[in-house]
Amino acid sequence: MKVVKFGGSSLASGAQLDKVFHIVTSDPARKAVVVSAPGKHYAEDTKVTDLLIACAEQYLATGSAPELAEAVVERYALIANELQLGQSIIEKIRDDLFTLLEGDKSNPEQYLDAVKASGEDNNAKLIAAYFRYKGVKAEYVNPKDAGLFVTNEPGNAQVLPESYQNLYRLRERDGLIIFPGFFGFSKDGDVITFSRSGSDITGSILANGLQADLYENFTDVDAVYSVNPSFVENPKEISELTYREMRELSYAGFSVFHDEALIPAFRAGIPVQIKNTNNPSAEGTRVVSKRDNTNGPVVGIASDTGFCSIYISKYLMNREIGFGRRALQILEEHGLTYEHVPSGIDDMTIILRQGQMDAATERSVIKRIEEDLHADEVIVEHHLALIMVVGEAMRHNVGTTARAAKALSEAQVNIEMINQGSSEVSMMFGVKEAEERKAVQALYQEFFAGVLIS
Amino acid sequence: MKVVKFGGSSLASGAQLDKVFHIVTSDPARKAVVVSAPGKHYAEDTKVTDLLIACAEQYLATGSAPELAEAVVERYALIANELQLGQSIIEKIRDDLFTLLEGDKSNPEQYLDAVKASGEDNNAKLIAAYFRYKGVKAEYVNPKDAGLFVTNEPGNAQVLPESYQNLYRLRERDGLIIFPGFFGFSKDGDVITFSRSGSDITGSILANGLQADLYENFTDVDAVYSVNPSFVENPKEISELTYREMRELSYAGFSVFHDEALIPAFRAGIPVQIKNTNNPSAEGTRVVSKRDNTNGPVVGIASDTGFCSIYISKYLMNREIGFGRRALQILEEHGLTYEHVPSGIDDMTIILRQGQMDAATERSVIKRIEEDLHADEVIVEHHLALIMVVGEAMRHNVGTTARAAKALSEAQVNIEMINQGSSEVSMMFGVKEAEERKAVQALYQEFFAGVLIS
Repeated sequence: MKVVKFGGSSLASGAQLDKVFHIVTSDPARKAVVVSAPGKHYAEDTKVTDLLIACAEQYLATGSAPELAEAVVERYALIANELQLGQSIIEKIRDDLFTLLEGDKSNPEQYLDAVKASGEDNNAKLIAAYFRYKGVKAEYVNPKDAGLFVTNEPGNAQVLPESYQNLYRLRERDGLIIFPGFFGFSKDGDVITFSRSGSDITGSILANGLQADLYENFTDVDAVYSVNPSFVENPKEISELTYREMRELSYAGFSVFHDEALIPAFRAGIPVQIKNTNNPSAEGTRVVSKRDNTNGPVVGIASDTGFCSIYISKYLMNREIGFGRRALQILEEHGLTYEHVPSGIDDMTIILRQGQMDAATERSVIKRIEEDLHADEVIVEHHLALIMVVGEAMRHNVGTTARAAKALSEAQVNIEMINQGSSEVSMMFGVKEAEERKAVQALYQEFFAGVLIS
Repeated sequence: MKVVKFGGSSLASGAQLDKVFHIVTSDPARKAVVVSAPGKHYAEDTKVTDLLIACAEQYLATGSAPELAEAVVERYALIANELQLGQSIIEKIRDDLFTLLEGDKSNPEQYLDAVKASGEDNNAKLIAAYFRYKGVKAEYVNPKDAGLFVTNEPGNAQVLPESYQNLYRLRERDGLIIFPGFFGFSKDGDVITFSRSGSDITGSILANGLQADLYENFTDVDAVYSVNPSFVENPKEISELTYREMRELSYAGFSVFHDEALIPAFRAGIPVQIKNTNNPSAEGTRVVSKRDNTNGPVVGIASDTGFCSIYISKYLMNREIGFGRRALQILEEHGLTYEHVPSGIDDMTIILRQGQMDAATERSVIKRIEEDLHADEVIVEHHLALIMVVGEAMRHNVGTTARAAKALSEAQVNIEMINQGSSEVSMMFGVKEAEERKAVQALYQEFFAGVLIS
């Protein structure tokens, strides 16, 4: 039995919905369908979710937003008309939306969550109607009825463990289950959304709850690429990678799959298949617990910019119990998270995302480190890029580090930092932002020998 | 003006003392002489300091130790006789020692410190007597009279800042100053010793206080080697290195110079020259603030065994504010210090010295990490060696990492961990202990192309 999830771009028009219909019905194992809100129909289009956010915000500010609300309804109407579904479903959606928009606004966060979630919820209703119209037994299932309960954290809901048992009972239902992504219900009965792209999370939770054999995630790319296609032309597609590899890649710039979404599938050991709605015969990318190592040590190369480093040196730092812990605590007290802490004997470098630290915070952090820790030197360096070379097979491969370092050296890229823990799923190189492209290209050339975009 | 320090092996016999006399008097800039206690006269001999420790412990346990005490006096007597100094100095030393041994034992730690320190103190008196006997103006200076004040931490004294000004006044004295190493006085007037090999510390403090131009440290090797001579035959001698390079090398297995001892000289920017008493014409090794980069990126390769690693993984660890800090805090609460913390996205590896963690502590640490931090996996790996490739010039040298990694790869050494912070004074490779020798040899071969001992 399979859980199938479709993203917004797969649901942006009647033509797309038709593809979805054929994909779902071509395999009787596909039992539960999780859907996003309609995405962009064309490049300059607005996603329904974004329309809904604008609409809710205007309602909160002025008490009405007739044009935005009608624009939302219009998007569903266009799809329904294209599919010749008739007006009744659109009337239902309009009623539902206006009831929501004119409802209780005493808790603005919760109000916003409820309005946002209607994008998925109404789309699930529309899609269930279309499947039935095509003669297939299918029912819209409300997450509250199904027992998908979450913590009361609007925009960042965490699934409650009891949900899995509740969802398991959906197995008894006859026909297809059309399930809205992106939200669950608090124990008080309020709609609470997951973080953005949360439909991936719903699919993963449902796969876990239903004890599915496979979680299929349909999007608009053929596969996860081994490197950013804006750096390398026709990059190699990854046919199989592990959860950990996926997580390392998605951390540093790979946005195909929401990484929090992997957890429920990962915990249940359910493979995730990423496929293309527009090219369903393409093999796609499978995310698994373990994979055979057949394609060399490296599975992918990811990179991201916007990092900075705080270099702290103090003679005999190494002898001071608690020095590193206290340095990290100063960051924590400023609400900062860090990424890595490479160190020498008497120095440590804290790498963190620049965006979370404004100039005033930076001055305050430096001052605290100098004064509380009596550091000899504190130097902040900006505009760093982190490059992750990822692959489980690196663990047993003696020469991978040498190959990576040599490739960077030959491309005249200076390595600012290296970090490789004993997991060896990944190797991190810190370089200057200006050298990111050159560095990624050199590493890709070394491990995949592809065509570069210069 | 120079401060000169002689280690125990340079002072173990009359013949050695004669060498010291000629070295000191051959350069009129040599003003202050810091001396250790007599070291081993021959390989199976016992250092005077070790005799004194045994003696003090027996006194504390039984109230007397006539044979050990006489053995100490005998060591001075042998030297005095060899130098034809006559009996009076030996009688003085005997009186001083027995007065000390039979003195107040109410604070055993302080008693032990006072007895230990007498090794240096009496040697300074003996040497001053010998210089005068040879017709040179020289006086023994007591650290208390000179104002060398330290914290009241027996065996781990820290110099008090006022000492430097007090010691500066010694410049006014005429003739040579013979100063005992290894100890200072608390503000209460008690003898308190530095950590072991603390005569290096005294020399460095005196150099700082006297504002010397150079601190000469005489020992029994021609120079600091670029690699452990038990791994590589005739290793390259280092003619010049920076304080930071020295510190990184001495941290991981280089024991020529006590690294705490560098601080006072480092703070005052006074170069340290390491020379050989038995071959004073050899150039030796100079430790400086900055050096010209003429000899390639790497100045030395050090390694040490006895490390272990605690690998901690948890899915989405990276998102948890304070995870790393809390892990380090658990170590701190167990009294453990750590060396490095390489990390992946969702894992961190804490490298620490094995010796400080017994099996019970290890179990407790693992349990706390599992329970308090809800880690997915905690794995301890033992028998690791850390290899430090050290050199300030690595900072600007694009290919050094590649060369090091390639050398290890070609020697079939698997790199368990890499750590290189933005200081880039050193690069750390973690390997299995069994591969330490092979790894060091491969790195030496790459950077120095020497003859290996296999």
